[in-house]
Amino acid sequence: MWKKILLFGVSGAALLTVGILVGHFGISQDLSPAWVNEVSQDVDEALIEQFIKEVDNKNIEQNLKTLASDPHMATTPGDEKLVKFMLDRWKDPNTGLDETWRQTYKVFLSFPDMNKPNCFTVVSPTDTIQYTSRLKEKAYTEDQNDPEVVQPYAAYAPAGHPKGKLVYANQGKVSDYEFLNKTIDLTGTIAIVRYGGAGRADKAINGARFGVAGVLVYTDPADINDGKMSDANETYPHSWYLPPSGAERGSFNGYFGDLLTPYYAAKEHTYRMPVSDITGIPPIATQPIGFEDAYALICKLDGDEAPAVWQGSFNCTYKLGPGFSNTSAFANSDVQVNVYNKGEMKDSANVMGVIRGSVEPDRYVIYGNHRDSWVHGAIDPSSGTAVMLEITRVLGKMVKEGKWRPRRSIIFGSWGAEEFGLIGSTEYAEEYYSKLRDRTIAYINVDISVFANATLRAQGSPAAQSVIFTAAKQVKTPGSQTTSVYDNWIRYSNRSSPSYGIIPSLGYLTGAGSDYAAFMHYLGITSMDIAYTYDRSKTKARIYPAYHTAYDTFDYTSKYIDPGFTSHQTVARTAGNVLLRLADSLVIPFNPSDYAETVEQYYSTAAESFTDKMSTMGISLEPLNAAVKRFREATSFLNQQIHNSDMAKETPLKIRRINDQLMFLDRAFLDPMAFPDKYHYRHVIWTSRSSGVATFPGLADAFAKADNSGLKSDWEQVEKHLTIVIQALEGAASTLEAVI
Amino acid sequence: MWKKILLFGVSGAALLTVGILVGHFGISQDLSPAWVNEVSQDVDEALIEQFIKEVDNKNIEQNLKTLASDPHMATTPGDEKLVKFMLDRWKDPNTGLDETWRQTYKVFLSFPDMNKPNCFTVVSPTDTIQYTSRLKEKAYTEDQNDPEVVQPYAAYAPAGHPKGKLVYANQGKVSDYEFLNKTIDLTGTIAIVRYGGAGRADKAINGARFGVAGVLVYTDPADINDGKMSDANETYPHSWYLPPSGAERGSFNGYFGDLLTPYYAAKEHTYRMPVSDITGIPPIATQPIGFEDAYALICKLDGDEAPAVWQGSFNCTYKLGPGFSNTSAFANSDVQVNVYNKGEMKDSANVMGVIRGSVEPDRYVIYGNHRDSWVHGAIDPSSGTAVMLEITRVLGKMVKEGKWRPRRSIIFGSWGAEEFGLIGSTEYAEEYYSKLRDRTIAYINVDISVFANATLRAQGSPAAQSVIFTAAKQVKTPGSQTTSVYDNWIRYSNRSSPSYGIIPSLGYLTGAGSDYAAFMHYLGITSMDIAYTYDRSKTKARIYPAYHTAYDTFDYTSKYIDPGFTSHQTVARTAGNVLLRLADSLVIPFNPSDYAETVEQYYSTAAESFTDKMSTMGISLEPLNAAVKRFREATSFLNQQIHNSDMAKETPLKIRRINDQLMFLDRAFLDPMAFPDKYHYRHVIWTSRSSGVATFPGLADAFAKADNSGLKSDWEQVEKHLTIVIQALEGAASTLEAVI
Repeated sequence: MWKKILLFGVSGAALLTVGILVGHFGISQDLSPAWVNEVSQDVDEALIEQFIKEVDNKNIEQNLKTLASDPHMATTPGDEKLVKFMLDRWKDPNTGLDETWRQTYKVFLSFPDMNKPNCFTVVSPTDTIQYTSRLKEKAYTEDQNDPEVVQPYAAYAPAGHPKGKLVYANQGKVSDYEFLNKTIDLTGTIAIVRYGGAGRADKAINGARFGVAGVLVYTDPADINDGKMSDANETYPHSWYLPPSGAERGSFNGYFGDLLTPYYAAKEHTYRMPVSDITGIPPIATQPIGFEDAYALICKLDGDEAPAVWQGSFNCTYKLGPGFSNTSAFANSDVQVNVYNKGEMKDSANVMGVIRGSVEPDRYVIYGNHRDSWVHGAIDPSSGTAVMLEITRVLGKMVKEGKWRPRRSIIFGSWGAEEFGLIGSTEYAEEYYSKLRDRTIAYINVDISVFANATLRAQGSPAAQSVIFTAAKQVKTPGSQTTSVYDNWIRYSNRSSPSYGIIPSLGYLTGAGSDYAAFMHYLGITSMDIAYTYDRSKTKARIYPAYHTAYDTFDYTSKYIDPGFTSHQTVARTAGNVLLRLADSLVIPFNPSDYAETVEQYYSTAAESFTDKMSTMGISLEPLNAAVKRFREATSFLNQQIHNSDMAKETPLKIRRINDQLMFLDRAFLDPMAFPDKYHYRHVIWTSRSSGVATFPGLADAFAKADNSGLKSDWEQVEKHLTIVIQALEGAASTLEAVI
Repeated sequence: MWKKILLFGVSGAALLTVGILVGHFGISQDLSPAWVNEVSQDVDEALIEQFIKEVDNKNIEQNLKTLASDPHMATTPGDEKLVKFMLDRWKDPNTGLDETWRQTYKVFLSFPDMNKPNCFTVVSPTDTIQYTSRLKEKAYTEDQNDPEVVQPYAAYAPAGHPKGKLVYANQGKVSDYEFLNKTIDLTGTIAIVRYGGAGRADKAINGARFGVAGVLVYTDPADINDGKMSDANETYPHSWYLPPSGAERGSFNGYFGDLLTPYYAAKEHTYRMPVSDITGIPPIATQPIGFEDAYALICKLDGDEAPAVWQGSFNCTYKLGPGFSNTSAFANSDVQVNVYNKGEMKDSANVMGVIRGSVEPDRYVIYGNHRDSWVHGAIDPSSGTAVMLEITRVLGKMVKEGKWRPRRSIIFGSWGAEEFGLIGSTEYAEEYYSKLRDRTIAYINVDISVFANATLRAQGSPAAQSVIFTAAKQVKTPGSQTTSVYDNWIRYSNRSSPSYGIIPSLGYLTGAGSDYAAFMHYLGITSMDIAYTYDRSKTKARIYPAYHTAYDTFDYTSKYIDPGFTSHQTVARTAGNVLLRLADSLVIPFNPSDYAETVEQYYSTAAESFTDKMSTMGISLEPLNAAVKRFREATSFLNQQIHNSDMAKETPLKIRRINDQLMFLDRAFLDPMAFPDKYHYRHVIWTSRSSGVATFPGLADAFAKADNSGLKSDWEQVEKHLTIVIQALEGAASTLEAVI
């Protein structure tokens, strides 16, 4: 009986235990809401490896061939064809995105007149035309003969036919004209200037201030061709160098976004300011020309010898003018600039596509590239478009196969009308300002993906340095199984960091060179720009020589820029890797301490450059120093918060809180009142700077102005800009410190 | 045997079942992370009932007695005493807050000279002084004799001693001076004007434009005393009416925030603009006077009779001047205004206190009241301070006893230097712009808590209407067990809502009347202002008669404003209820559809008022109509999202997403470029408006200007303001629509 009772008891206990175990482990999961595991989902390293593996160079090559097959200047039929191509790709049922659509803005563009091509002529005193410049670049391949190839022109330069004595004005900087103005009356002259040194529009704006009536711009072989000039054997099609007739087109526009609707999205009904109120564009006729035409002029100039640093590669001594030498064929002749440009309202499309986030759909990572080119634009921008399409193919496939969905939403933008002034991306930023500001983690820009095939080149907010480095360490350099992009990069471009020692040098986004501008400067979104670039020890070219010319074709790219397309592949892998980490990481992979390092560097440069003079003016940098220190401490504090706990076990709202602190760090540097004369520039650390002192830009420019003028009101502006920087730094520190 | 087996089997099954149940329900909670229940914590209705019960009128009375015992003008010893008092209360170990501190700004204030009191004199042609105005108000109680009672003055009006013929300029509006200017050369005159109709500073700024040299301001008995004038039996101390010598002090400053540091927190090192650059303050000597002194002047004036609407309560016909009647004692005499004000830099303190949130500490509800008064300030602002201290006592006690901790963080602000231009709150908003913008759910302002004891009066963003209504329905009106504050309110002030029928009328925050201004207009934070107020059928007083005078004392309050302090108690219960709901509700209790109703009302007013004229100018309102419709649809969409699911079961990140959409709704209406001439005004819906048409303010004012001038450039501004409103509405709609 006892046995039975014992058996009964033991069996009972066992069954009870089994029951408890079953109850606890077998079905107890039901009690935890389904989302508990989901919210702590982190980046999947295996998936990133898989992504890297699947990015294919042949696909990119094929993409590029299609993209660059026709000229696709903004709003032309070639552009429209690519709009449809992008939409098709992103709607592909097997490799497309969740959703894609076209978004159109009505924008103010500027075009030459196909029937009356721009040119310059040399006109004798008896009104005989002695020389006429080329109306188009020389064709070496069939595609360069396409009637859709727009002739070189200066977009937004006004129509006009000024005629006058020629002067050589170096790069068209204020200091260049000032120099000429000492000995030459510039009134009514035509200035010939080189690309470089000043913004395109500034070359004309500066000249007009001194009375110059027209401007010709060319690229000196010294600046682009390492001195090479002959297309018989030196330049394209024999090498990557610019042929003699090649001329850089461009937007001669100092601002970004649609010129008639600053701050407001250029929709059908949007108010447009009068065209006559536009500032920042040339007030005088301006035309870019090839160096063969420039050569015909410059080597015949009369007057004093130009300074040594003004000399270029032509086999003559560059003289200042005015006018031509009495011994030249053009003696006593004038130069007439003939420009027939006209402004036109056009519908320009962005193509947008999204992959919805699973856990935090209201957090965005935006990846963008512009679609429009000047001519075939194989490199600018289609090298970037080809990369973007390969990234979306691989990611789209993973989504369609149900293998992956990002934690956060990813937005892809194929921007329109970038070449005219970053218009598509800026109008988008204006239209969706509030929600983009409130929700966007980061913006990744890949415009030209491959300038050359030597090394990675990345620019960005310092907050993004760490994630770029992580990706660059994981991706291998083209053709290598062992050398990482990071290790290769550090050989070409590095700096000494107080925290890390020698590291690759991440550039800053201080200008408006591509579509990151509206995101970084106007929205304060942590942004970055990624590409492959030159071995600077091998060329002095200011950019790849076919830039903005009819020679930027598939042929040129595949022969001279990236044969095999492995650098394209490497950029796709690196940028895609960054994208995946930003979209999927539980904690946003930004390191605020890297921001502190930049700010400290800025401060020490300011202290070195300004302290002496400022003390004599009774202005102390100490409050700025204190703000920099507080910012550093705040970055350390937040990093401790992140690293001192196991984030996967934390409440999702605590992680979100930290992520919001990281997301809003760059936003805290926005000050819409800081730069009243600069449209769209609001970021106190990264706004464009004229001063050569690499420090807080508003402070540097205010100091330069006051130091030059000595005016009390200008020194007050220095004090004001100190306050602006201090409040921004303290605001940013507040964002990172304990939330309450 | 079968029996035993059966018994064994049944028992075994039972034990197994028990085990499963124990395993499942008994211990399975351990598997869910501790935070799973916490994140879905919602508002506790029982706790709100408990809060209502504990708010005590006697405590409020005692608070007020202490707060109003001494004059406490900003930065005076009386103010400093209250700073310490607030700090002590909020540090109380049993009823204090989690943390409290003093936060000081160095601000530009303006004071009279104690040794040379301001006054006016009547001066005969032989320089005999025939009359001198009172140097201080007549004392009826001991506290009004306190040497710390500052004499009436116009803060920020410049020192000066202009002398000239007197004119009567009604309310000092532009139209008033225009009217006078038709028949009178105003150059060098002294204008006497009534309070009301125009901002304080505008009365002098407008006059100076017409050549007026000095301004006297008084409150006509018609505007404040329902015509009563005698202190023998009619005015205080016999009633709440203003005694004859009472004069309204005030800040004569059209902007808000420290005048020398717009947009930047006024710290020690902050850049200060030159005092001479300040705009928006009187350019000429200006002095407020009691109506007894005004009576001595106005009834002796010469000239034409003033228009009927300019007539006041004096027993004479108001004439325009210039100068006095030949038959009067002042024949041929001038009036001289003597002002000795001077600007001073002063340290003004905010006292800040926080209760940390448990679940979302990075979400703030801010509750504020200013501390500084002009004199004893029993009503303005100490009635509000007394209420705030009772709210913090009850909440602080619950926290200290471990009975409660809010879901979100609560920040209490006792603002300094409000009377000089909302300075403490604005400097705080400037200093912490970024984090306040990113994290603040709402701002609750209780300045004067009880103007009178008839009914609740609430103003605010329409988003907050629903939570104010909920609280008002739950709290009973003073002395009643059955009538709710809501039911009482609806009797005094109501409107017909297309959605709800007759509801209480929530006012809008279109001006800068109190410390909500920086939060609503500059930061775009959903704000509200709560008080008890008059039965408008019983008085025409423009505000309670002792406003900004030496009679605003505890005696006055307890006798004539709120005997028994039950209206104070009701405001504390209502505002505290709103505070608790904002801090604790799982989903923020904002109803975006109420915003849509306001916007639709604005649109229909614009359409009625502007369509005809605009059509003739070729301007269509259709795009605005479309934007309004899209905004309405977006509000409905978000409301569906909220109501179609059981939020307590949703993932915390989905709730956070919806809450962020609600939080950022008001922020989406910010446009720092919309009103370039109005410091700190950025909210496209609520910015101050001059036009009488109650619609989108920028549009209304631009229309009024263009309609008046007929200039093309002014009509372009109308079009621009249409664009501004449309983009803001569409941006707000985007914030509420599907997040991706």
